[in-house]
Amino acid sequence: MEPQLQLDTDKQPLRELIKAGAYAALSERLPDEHVQDIAEALTDFGPSMVLEVLGMLPVDERPQVFAYLPTAQQYQLLDAADDDFGIPLLRALPADDQTALLESLKPEQLQDILRLLAPAEVRKAMEQLGYPEQSAGRLMNTEFVTLRPNWSLARALDHVRRQGYQGDGVNTLYVTDHRGRLQGTISLKRLVLEAPDQSVQSLISGPLVSIDASESRNEAARAIQHYDITALPVVDKNGVLLGAVTVDDVMDVVQEEATEDFHKIGAVGALGLSLRDARPSLLYRKRVGWLVLLVFVNLLSGAGIAFYEATIEQVIALVFFLPLIIASGGNAGSQSATLMVRALATGDVAPRDWLRLWGREFGVAIALGLTMGAAIYGVGLWRGGGEVALVVSLSMVLVVAFGSMIGMVLPMMLNRFEFDPATASAPLITSIADVCGILIYFSIATAILTLPA
Amino acid sequence: MEPQLQLDTDKQPLRELIKAGAYAALSERLPDEHVQDIAEALTDFGPSMVLEVLGMLPVDERPQVFAYLPTAQQYQLLDAADDDFGIPLLRALPADDQTALLESLKPEQLQDILRLLAPAEVRKAMEQLGYPEQSAGRLMNTEFVTLRPNWSLARALDHVRRQGYQGDGVNTLYVTDHRGRLQGTISLKRLVLEAPDQSVQSLISGPLVSIDASESRNEAARAIQHYDITALPVVDKNGVLLGAVTVDDVMDVVQEEATEDFHKIGAVGALGLSLRDARPSLLYRKRVGWLVLLVFVNLLSGAGIAFYEATIEQVIALVFFLPLIIASGGNAGSQSATLMVRALATGDVAPRDWLRLWGREFGVAIALGLTMGAAIYGVGLWRGGGEVALVVSLSMVLVVAFGSMIGMVLPMMLNRFEFDPATASAPLITSIADVCGILIYFSIATAILTLPA
Repeated sequence: MEPQLQLDTDKQPLRELIKAGAYAALSERLPDEHVQDIAEALTDFGPSMVLEVLGMLPVDERPQVFAYLPTAQQYQLLDAADDDFGIPLLRALPADDQTALLESLKPEQLQDILRLLAPAEVRKAMEQLGYPEQSAGRLMNTEFVTLRPNWSLARALDHVRRQGYQGDGVNTLYVTDHRGRLQGTISLKRLVLEAPDQSVQSLISGPLVSIDASESRNEAARAIQHYDITALPVVDKNGVLLGAVTVDDVMDVVQEEATEDFHKIGAVGALGLSLRDARPSLLYRKRVGWLVLLVFVNLLSGAGIAFYEATIEQVIALVFFLPLIIASGGNAGSQSATLMVRALATGDVAPRDWLRLWGREFGVAIALGLTMGAAIYGVGLWRGGGEVALVVSLSMVLVVAFGSMIGMVLPMMLNRFEFDPATASAPLITSIADVCGILIYFSIATAILTLPA
Repeated sequence: MEPQLQLDTDKQPLRELIKAGAYAALSERLPDEHVQDIAEALTDFGPSMVLEVLGMLPVDERPQVFAYLPTAQQYQLLDAADDDFGIPLLRALPADDQTALLESLKPEQLQDILRLLAPAEVRKAMEQLGYPEQSAGRLMNTEFVTLRPNWSLARALDHVRRQGYQGDGVNTLYVTDHRGRLQGTISLKRLVLEAPDQSVQSLISGPLVSIDASESRNEAARAIQHYDITALPVVDKNGVLLGAVTVDDVMDVVQEEATEDFHKIGAVGALGLSLRDARPSLLYRKRVGWLVLLVFVNLLSGAGIAFYEATIEQVIALVFFLPLIIASGGNAGSQSATLMVRALATGDVAPRDWLRLWGREFGVAIALGLTMGAAIYGVGLWRGGGEVALVVSLSMVLVVAFGSMIGMVLPMMLNRFEFDPATASAPLITSIADVCGILIYFSIATAILTLPA
């Protein structure tokens, strides 16, 4: 673990206090704690204990702590709490968190929770559930303040003040026409700083950035990063403003996407939840498919060996180098696949760069192969004499170069045909490199070695 | 590539227009383009072309486009431009971008650039260069507005208006005492919305969140994510406010850290720059170390095989399954290492979860091993008869279980002793699993098979 922030040092004690049920000490400590730290300390505790602690907080802090609890725990709480206590918690959740909670529930649980909401709130929640999973529509928050283009800034500011303006951390105001279609955005900062007699219209600058609610949340993340904005308006097909995706929502998306790619490159299916909370059966399912699939690729390696069985029987020293040769090809391939998959995921390389990258990889791969071939030549001499050393070194050069090229080209091709490049996982590349390595190694051996008839 | 945002569809033509030197068409198009898109289109073009295009933009947009260009291109431009043109560009850069530019320069280039700045600006830039690399101090922006706790909100708002208040996207104001020590923060939103006769002090709520300038930027990123804030104040040892790290800076950090871990798990050293821009020699250096190191681990595999050479000579069918057995252990190990390394990096698992995770992994690993062993039993029967099938299946169970455990335990141990868990790269785990796999396989073979004397 990296060193904790100084301000975090009290976290463990808070957890301990809760565990010990030291309510007097807790009630003294809680006012000095951040809502996020309280929520973190409450994770894993049962609903009765959590309700107890929530009850010790001021009424306006309870929903905040509640919002930072894991979704599963939120449901347990609402299920266990009196309606008087639970309804304000649920209602105060931002729209995207509400949606996340609702979509995690089984149908009968959903009924339980929906009855806590007013009809208009239910409609809104169900609407948001109608957007595709992983879409911008699911991620957006639906609380925002709209202004009209012909208003003066003074009137706009007055409007903002009257609206009370929830949207925590969001400092963007949306300009819409009479049909609710987005015309542009202005920041609260400019609204405050600019001369109050100007029109809202005059402050809208540059072309409009927005995203359709059905676009992927990934695209929303990219747009926010690319345009360096704190809030991205989400619109429907007609350009009507539906909500906004904010930079803090997007940061979680960036983390989750990185985790997913990370797992994929290790040949693990997307878990969709924390490793901590994954059940053994889920972990088994997400791993077994790839492992069994790779058995068949590896059987090809066996077939390759069977084909050269006569050579092996004659020069048993060749088996000594077999794991080394095939592992080196796999390792070099894992390296280049890793580089390529990540570069494709972050948009770091564009298709127009590919030919150049391919050429560069070829050069690097040959250099790596030569280094590896030289490194192993001496061992070859020692174990098997001059001929074997030549076979081993030459094989090493080719296997490393070949593995590297596969590692780079396979993700590119997958990307080209609109598959996920991360499907070219390190274990897949390794297994393919194994097969190629065996064929290269024994072909060279058969060609070079003077075999007894 | 995923589908481009709708608003991006014109990007390619913009690049083409620049390439073709179609200035008339460009000057028509540029006003409708986002500064970020213009900067992206200008990437890779020489300084004279970029200066030409910048010259076509309104004076106030030039520094914005300049700020989004890659650091290397920024230097080229400043070097090529007249001082009259270059100085405003450099001065308008946010402090963290200025620092990034300066730290990328060679000493003689640094002199070139520093002479464009006023003495006070030079002092500020050099100060920021004094913080450790990858620290919060390097990442922070130093433009902020401070308020005094005893001011009324009316006076504070007036102060904000008079300061003009640069800090793009930052909507947080900092409350400091007479020595500049941070007392708290308030949002511009609350300043605008609350009754103007209240004191600034009365709006500061909850405990203070801040970070020391020498702390790592990683910690800053975690604090911003954990506390769900848009700006994190950066202070010195005495609590004096130095600047702020904002959520958009942190998003880049999160991306870069994920990339670094991604590369490490693939046994590639941190590149420190885009794959696109990496030179072959850099790529070679970042990869060759691990590859050569792993040769030595793989030589142990060879030694293992040499030890069992007699067994192999007698039952050559065993070699057929060798690549499969060792690859399966490596694949299972890569999977569990990937899961563990990422979970440690995101803080998803805490040390108190380890024992439970270890137990769960054991169960999952055995289940995976049994599945794999069953999958391969038939092939064993076909290739080598009942005894060989038993050896192969039993080895598979143990090798997969063993590989999984190594993949989980090694990152945990590295973390425990404060090494980077991502050092347990997939190729390293694979290579270690290879050695273990060979020993397990041939031990079982020697024990079970009826070998001719």
